[in-house]
Amino acid sequence: MKKLLFASLVSLISLLAVGQNNEEAQIKKIFDAALSHGQSYEMLEHLTTQIGPRLSGSPGAAAAVEWSREVMTAYGFDSVWLQPVMVPHWVRGKKEVGRIVNSKKQGNIDVNICALGGSIGTGNGGISAQIVEVKNFEELKQLGTKNVQGKIVYFSRPMDPTHIDTFDAYSGASNQRGSGAAEAAKYGAVAAVVRSMGSNIEEYPHTGGMRYADGVTKIPGVAISTAHGDLLSSLLKEDKELRLYIETHSQILEDVPSFNVVGELRGTENPEDIIVVGGHLDSWDLAQGAHDDGAGCVQSIEVLRIFKEIGYKPKRSIRAVMFMNEENGLRGGTKYAELAKVNKEKHIGAIESDRGGFTPRGFTMSATDKVKKKVRGWAPMLAPYGLTDFSKDGGGADIGPLGPQGVALFGFLPDSQRYFNYHHTEEDTFDKVDKRELELGAASMAALTYLIDQDGLK
Amino acid sequence: MKKLLFASLVSLISLLAVGQNNEEAQIKKIFDAALSHGQSYEMLEHLTTQIGPRLSGSPGAAAAVEWSREVMTAYGFDSVWLQPVMVPHWVRGKKEVGRIVNSKKQGNIDVNICALGGSIGTGNGGISAQIVEVKNFEELKQLGTKNVQGKIVYFSRPMDPTHIDTFDAYSGASNQRGSGAAEAAKYGAVAAVVRSMGSNIEEYPHTGGMRYADGVTKIPGVAISTAHGDLLSSLLKEDKELRLYIETHSQILEDVPSFNVVGELRGTENPEDIIVVGGHLDSWDLAQGAHDDGAGCVQSIEVLRIFKEIGYKPKRSIRAVMFMNEENGLRGGTKYAELAKVNKEKHIGAIESDRGGFTPRGFTMSATDKVKKKVRGWAPMLAPYGLTDFSKDGGGADIGPLGPQGVALFGFLPDSQRYFNYHHTEEDTFDKVDKRELELGAASMAALTYLIDQDGLK
Repeated sequence: MKKLLFASLVSLISLLAVGQNNEEAQIKKIFDAALSHGQSYEMLEHLTTQIGPRLSGSPGAAAAVEWSREVMTAYGFDSVWLQPVMVPHWVRGKKEVGRIVNSKKQGNIDVNICALGGSIGTGNGGISAQIVEVKNFEELKQLGTKNVQGKIVYFSRPMDPTHIDTFDAYSGASNQRGSGAAEAAKYGAVAAVVRSMGSNIEEYPHTGGMRYADGVTKIPGVAISTAHGDLLSSLLKEDKELRLYIETHSQILEDVPSFNVVGELRGTENPEDIIVVGGHLDSWDLAQGAHDDGAGCVQSIEVLRIFKEIGYKPKRSIRAVMFMNEENGLRGGTKYAELAKVNKEKHIGAIESDRGGFTPRGFTMSATDKVKKKVRGWAPMLAPYGLTDFSKDGGGADIGPLGPQGVALFGFLPDSQRYFNYHHTEEDTFDKVDKRELELGAASMAALTYLIDQDGLK
Repeated sequence: MKKLLFASLVSLISLLAVGQNNEEAQIKKIFDAALSHGQSYEMLEHLTTQIGPRLSGSPGAAAAVEWSREVMTAYGFDSVWLQPVMVPHWVRGKKEVGRIVNSKKQGNIDVNICALGGSIGTGNGGISAQIVEVKNFEELKQLGTKNVQGKIVYFSRPMDPTHIDTFDAYSGASNQRGSGAAEAAKYGAVAAVVRSMGSNIEEYPHTGGMRYADGVTKIPGVAISTAHGDLLSSLLKEDKELRLYIETHSQILEDVPSFNVVGELRGTENPEDIIVVGGHLDSWDLAQGAHDDGAGCVQSIEVLRIFKEIGYKPKRSIRAVMFMNEENGLRGGTKYAELAKVNKEKHIGAIESDRGGFTPRGFTMSATDKVKKKVRGWAPMLAPYGLTDFSKDGGGADIGPLGPQGVALFGFLPDSQRYFNYHHTEEDTFDKVDKRELELGAASMAALTYLIDQDGLK
C-alpha cells in the first residue's frame, strides 16, 4: 500500500512537472511567434498613420471601429461583433490662442495651450484676465473668492520627478486637470489653466479629460505646455498683475452612436468561461494615439492571432475587446460590463493594456488574495521574459466595471519612463513605439491569458 | 551576563537597522538629485550634438577629451588628469558605394553599405565579383576554395529575434562581422559583406570592428543594411550568378596619441581604496555615440557630481574614467589597468556603463562568489528603483583588463530592447535618449558606488 501511494505520488509529481514543462514550452512558442513574425507593429502602423486620431464621435473613431472588425475577421477569429454604445461628442474646434498680455519684460508672448476635453469654449471673444497661481486646491481655498473672483486660476503643480513610477507622479498632479476648472469656478474664477501633465519641459501641451461639478458655473479649462507654464510662473514672480488671454472654440455636442468591437476564439472545453484581453480604441484628438492606446488594441488582437498561429486552441473563450470612449466617458467599458451582466456571461478574468507599448515589467492585479497568490505562483515561468513585478494593485479603466461582477482584473505593466513624454499630445505617434517592445507586450498578455486558460483562477 | 549579551545583541541589531535605514535614505537622496536637477542629459546633449562623432584619432575624440577635462574640473572634482595612450587611427574616407550589378529582375540596384572599422579599402577601382551567401563559418568551410575563390562572401545570419536580451542575439551573430573577412580570405574570397548587426529591418548599415588574421590576405569587409541584405538574399535565390560592386576608401594610418580622462573625489578615510565608474569616450565615426557610449561617460561624471551635490564625502576614492578607444583597440582600458599595476593602486571595484542610456534593470558581475553574494544582499535596497537583475555574468570591455588584478567588475545593465536599433549607426543620436532613463542609470551607478564605498566588498 505504501509502495502504491509512493508510486502515485511520484506519478503526480511527474505529471505536474510535465505540465509545467509544457506550459514553459508553450510560453516560449508565444514569445517566439510575437518576435519572429508578429503582426502588432504593422497593425499599429495602419491604425495610427492611416486612421490617426480617434476621439469618440469623430470620423477617425468610426474608421477604427470598421478597421478593427475587418482585421479580426480577416484573421479568422471565430466571431467578431460590434456592441452599440452612445458616446459623448466633444469637439475642439479652431486651434486655441494663448497669450501673455503686455508683460513688463517681454510685452505680448504667445503660449501653447489646448482646451481640456469636455471643456466649454471661450468663444470668439476669448477671455482676458489677471492670473493667480496656485499649487493645489488648498491654496486656492486659502485665497478665496476675494482674491480669485474674475481671474484666471493657474494650477502649476508639476508631476513630481522623484517618483520612479511616472504613473505615481501623474496621480499626484492630475486632479488639477480633472477638477481644476470646477474648483476655481467655486471662487468666481473665469477660467482655469493647468500646467501640462508631462514628465519633461516641452513646448507642446497635454490635453486630457476634465469634469464640471453640479451647481457650479462652467468655466473654460485649458492646459499650457510645461515650458510656457514655467515661463508664466517666472513672469508672475515679478509681475503680480500679469494678464493672460485665452481663446478656445471647443463644444459639447449631442451624444452619438458608436461601438465596442469584440473578436472571440471560442473555447473548446469550457466555452462559457470568458477571458478578456483589451485596450481602448478611442484616443485624444491631438494624438495618433500610438501608445494611448493603439498599442493596447493591437496587442489584444495579437494575443488571439498568436494563439491561432501556433495552433493553440483555448479551453475557454478568449475575447479581444476594443473598448470605445475610455478617454472622455468610459461608456464602452460600462456598456461591456452591463451586457455581460444582462447576458449572464461568466467572465473569469480580464487583462487590459493601457500604459503604452513599452518593455514589459509585470502585471497589476485587482483580485482576491487567492487569485493573486495563484498568479504569483506562475511568476517563475514569466520571469525569463522580464515579467517580474506582480506587486501593484489595479486593473484598467475599461475593464474596471467588470470588477463588481467578481471578475479578476489584470493590468499589463510596462516600463513607465517614457509614457508621459507623449501622453495626450501630438507627440503620441507611431515612431515613438519600438517594435520589439510592442511585441514583447503582446506576448506577455498572451502568456498570462494562456496560463489563465490552462489553469483557471480558482 | 545573559542580559548583557541580550542587550548588546539588541544594540547591534538596532545599529544594523539604523545603518540600513541610513543607506536607504542616502540612496533616495541620490535618485532624487539625479531626477530633480540632474546634469547628465545636458552633458550628453553637448557631447553628442556639439562634439559629435569621436572615433579614436579624430578631431571629435580630441575635443571630447578636452571637454571631459573641462567639465569635471568645473564641477570641482578633487583631481582631474589625462592618461596618455597611443591609439589606432583608422579613417573611413569617401562615402562607400555598393551596387548590385545587372540583376535579372531589376538591373543595377544601389545598396547601403559601410566599411567595417579596421578594414582596408578597395580603392578607387572598387571590387566587382560574384556573390556567394553563407550563414556561418561552417557553411563557408563546406563550400571551400573551389566555390569561394575570387568571389565576395555574403554573411547573412541575422540576429535571432527570439532572444529576449538583444545582447544574446548580438553575440550569436557578431562573429561574422569580427572575423568574416579573415575567414573568407582563407578560401580566396576578394571581399566580405556582412548583414548589419541590427534588431530590425532598416535602410542604414551598422559599422563595427573587424580583425584580420595573421598570415591571411587582407580583404575589404563591409556591412550592408538589413533591408538591402534581405534584398540581396532574395535576389540570390533566383540568380546564383548575381554580382556586387563595392567601393570603399578606408585606410589604416599610423597610431596617434590620445588620452583617458580621469576625475577623482579623494576618499576621506581610505583614500588608497579606489572605486572606478566609467564609460568610453570614443564612438564610431558614423554616430553621435549617444547611447554608445556618450551615455556611459556622462553617467559616470554624474555619479561624482551627485555625490558633491548631496554633500556625500566618500570614504574611498571614487574615479570617473572616460576610457579612449573601446571601439577599435581597447587601448585606453588596457593602459588604465597597466598604470594601476605600475602605480600599485588598490582598486576594489569598477563599474562600467556601455549598454546604452536605457531604463535600469540591474548589474552584471564578474567577481568572486563572496562578492556576488554581498552585492545581492543589497538588492532589496535597490529593487524600488527597478534594479532587480543581478543574475548575469560580466563587467565591461574597458574595465576588463582590471579583472586579472582581482578587481570586482560590474556592468550597468539597462533594458536592452532598443540598443541594437542604433548601435554603430548614424541613428545613435541624442534624440534617441530619454532624459529620465538616462538619469535613472546615473543614479543606479551612484547607488552601487555608494554601497561599495560604505560597506566595501569584503
